[in-house]
Amino acid sequence: MTAAEIADAVASGRLTARAAVADALARIAALDGRVNAFTDVTGERALSAADALDARLARGEPVGPLAGVPFAVKNLFDVAGLPTRAGSRINRERPPAGRDGALVRRLEAAGAILVGALNMGEYAYDFTGENVHDGPSRNPHDLAHMSGGSSGGSGAALAAGLVPLTLGSDTNGSIRVPSAFCGCFGLKPTYGRLSRAGSFPFVGSLDHLGPMARSTRDLALAYDAMQGPDPDDPVATRRPAEPVLPGLEAGTGDLRIAVAGGYFARGGDPEVFEAVRRAAEALGAAAVVEIPEAARARAAAYVISAAEGAALHLDRLRTRAADFDPAVRDRLLAGAMIPAPLVERAQKFRRWYAGAVAALFETVDVVLAPATPCRAPRGGETTLVLDGVAMPLRPNIGVFTQPLSFIGLPVAAVPVWPEAGLPVGVQVVAAPWREDRALRVARALEAAGLARAPVAVGMESPPQEAA
Amino acid sequence: MTAAEIADAVASGRLTARAAVADALARIAALDGRVNAFTDVTGERALSAADALDARLARGEPVGPLAGVPFAVKNLFDVAGLPTRAGSRINRERPPAGRDGALVRRLEAAGAILVGALNMGEYAYDFTGENVHDGPSRNPHDLAHMSGGSSGGSGAALAAGLVPLTLGSDTNGSIRVPSAFCGCFGLKPTYGRLSRAGSFPFVGSLDHLGPMARSTRDLALAYDAMQGPDPDDPVATRRPAEPVLPGLEAGTGDLRIAVAGGYFARGGDPEVFEAVRRAAEALGAAAVVEIPEAARARAAAYVISAAEGAALHLDRLRTRAADFDPAVRDRLLAGAMIPAPLVERAQKFRRWYAGAVAALFETVDVVLAPATPCRAPRGGETTLVLDGVAMPLRPNIGVFTQPLSFIGLPVAAVPVWPEAGLPVGVQVVAAPWREDRALRVARALEAAGLARAPVAVGMESPPQEAA
Repeated sequence: MTAAEIADAVASGRLTARAAVADALARIAALDGRVNAFTDVTGERALSAADALDARLARGEPVGPLAGVPFAVKNLFDVAGLPTRAGSRINRERPPAGRDGALVRRLEAAGAILVGALNMGEYAYDFTGENVHDGPSRNPHDLAHMSGGSSGGSGAALAAGLVPLTLGSDTNGSIRVPSAFCGCFGLKPTYGRLSRAGSFPFVGSLDHLGPMARSTRDLALAYDAMQGPDPDDPVATRRPAEPVLPGLEAGTGDLRIAVAGGYFARGGDPEVFEAVRRAAEALGAAAVVEIPEAARARAAAYVISAAEGAALHLDRLRTRAADFDPAVRDRLLAGAMIPAPLVERAQKFRRWYAGAVAALFETVDVVLAPATPCRAPRGGETTLVLDGVAMPLRPNIGVFTQPLSFIGLPVAAVPVWPEAGLPVGVQVVAAPWREDRALRVARALEAAGLARAPVAVGMESPPQEAA
Repeated sequence: MTAAEIADAVASGRLTARAAVADALARIAALDGRVNAFTDVTGERALSAADALDARLARGEPVGPLAGVPFAVKNLFDVAGLPTRAGSRINRERPPAGRDGALVRRLEAAGAILVGALNMGEYAYDFTGENVHDGPSRNPHDLAHMSGGSSGGSGAALAAGLVPLTLGSDTNGSIRVPSAFCGCFGLKPTYGRLSRAGSFPFVGSLDHLGPMARSTRDLALAYDAMQGPDPDDPVATRRPAEPVLPGLEAGTGDLRIAVAGGYFARGGDPEVFEAVRRAAEALGAAAVVEIPEAARARAAAYVISAAEGAALHLDRLRTRAADFDPAVRDRLLAGAMIPAPLVERAQKFRRWYAGAVAALFETVDVVLAPATPCRAPRGGETTLVLDGVAMPLRPNIGVFTQPLSFIGLPVAAVPVWPEAGLPVGVQVVAAPWREDRALRVARALEAAGLARAPVAVGMESPPQEAA
């Protein structure tokens, strides 16, 4: 069931919140050993919340649009009572969070029920979903393959059908990559749109939080529930919420949709460009636009991420180097030695690039691009071969996501399925603050049957059988 | 004559603009050889502008509040027809500017007349007023002593009586230091208040432009003429001008004035603290406040200046190293090697510090502090001895100015004279956007006879005699 179906069934009395939560907990107990999506299951809390919601319903009190919907969050969100580990070993020594993160509270205010915290790449500096401390989250569509990262558990939990809704974070692609690899929908909103209060950061000037789901309607429901200003986050916008659900089915007839050419049309496997072509065809989008200097944008995003990330972790690098994932540690140490003028120049370029892309969006409303250069690689793989050239896998997974998050553009990641095998992600990119357009296009692709996010084959079985 | 007196005499027909300009040009010709304040004299342009203004007056047309006032600008301001050298040798190979800088145009729109460009430390990375390419600007009150920098020519031209009004720039103290050493008034406005369009930068996140003069009234006249939004400068505020002249004489009875203690009350010669004490006494200010973490703020300003400055000059450092002032080059090279995470941390501290100082300004309106730890040292001096400890002179001149410009606070520099010898500068510091308060306090000190900016002894003689 989707989140919308659960909420509808709970609100109308056809299903109790307790049953919805108990089902999710049973599926997690039965199936998570295979995908390793969860690092913490908050079963007692969830059942207690479900009972409280059922009691409210019994008293005829109103419930929110996500009533009884089980959800889970990447473990960099604060969850009261848990240390916010952010995928690390070091952070789990921290005292438990005293309060849930802002977005957790907003989803619960809308009736959703938290059932746990999800596996992720250490300190979110990852594109694979692998984690040396907690083990890799695995791709439910083929357990030998990567879930993608760093919100790997958020993608795997959806594709395994453990919950219908998860939250992730995206600094350089960490929502869009696992959405692509696991075949689900993800929204990386405009920078500053959703509050980051009560979450563990990676790169302050690039971090975004956002929802992932198995339908565009669920994505919109969750996004609408989380929007709006938050005085606890100085970066969060002061704009009031701009709900997208009412316009989700409005179609795309009024939108100028184009395919990203140049940089975004090379350096990937044929399947990813074929998926973009099919999406464009379904939308009747024939135009091609070139996002200027995208390669430079990616390089600048890299430099800024490494340096800002290293600044955040400097004391830990000095005192706890041996307790990091060695690969993450080495990336951070490299970042710690980047000369400041290179970062200054990257920031200067960023201002120019934001202006150039803003000008592009005067001629077009939505741009389509691949999410990743390849489908989910096998777990443990470290080399990516593109056009016959071998290159390091992990950093190159983000070639198509980094240039877009670098200037905070809203992007919906949409799963498209080749004739056989694992899914491909298509990025639906809009101008800042126009999440509505990205989601309308995502919905149109879903309505056309091109985009879909099924539970993985072999994981649809009811928990009784699987257990 | 002050700028206000000249404007009044010109507007009322008692003096022609041509005579005012000719007098300034004659004084420059006669006296600048001693002080070396000017690098370019725009005599023809100035006389032509004066004639045009006189013609407008003859036709009964309105003229601005600075009618006929000769002024000059630090040579980092664009002046049409001159390469914007910014104190460097490299930049004078640039093509001549096609248009005057924004503030030059605003002063001329108010009737003022540009007579030339002024000597400065190379690329504004200086506190002494020395320049290996153009020679040092000298302190008119004692030619063996420094003018201060980097707006050294701007201070020297005022103290020598060459013009009644100059413009400077202040990144870490470059208006306040020469104002202190040369005994004149200077205003470093709130960061973002005055347009920087058409000027050569040093550290984008710290650079301010502002006026220097021999009276608070002239300072206010010029400041009011330059305020207001400028679409050519993305950092400049969008607030409309908030004229200070109407309230300049309002007194200080309603203001909570305090002296900065702690960091700002030690590490300087006795004369500078005595000047602050006298100013506080004249204002009846008995309270002492502590600006928190000022030493750290100065260190952070240093790190950010060096790194951002190096980023700006990186290509020139790579290709033209031998054409820099060697001392400036070495400072920039050091900046080029600062690891980025240190700069990130300095920026993070800066946000905290801005908040802490904002909280302080809820309890006080104006804070008094010394401008420099010593009076103008002898030219060529490289060591400063404070409390018996010898330290490098140049960097330590800015100990009291850097922590304030670091977060863009508005500061009026006010000259106070010990019983004998060179003047001392007192900083009058207000909360962001409250230049009006800083200038009212500066005016009160001037009205009390404590602050004054005389033309240097030996330079008052009419140009006929001096020539």
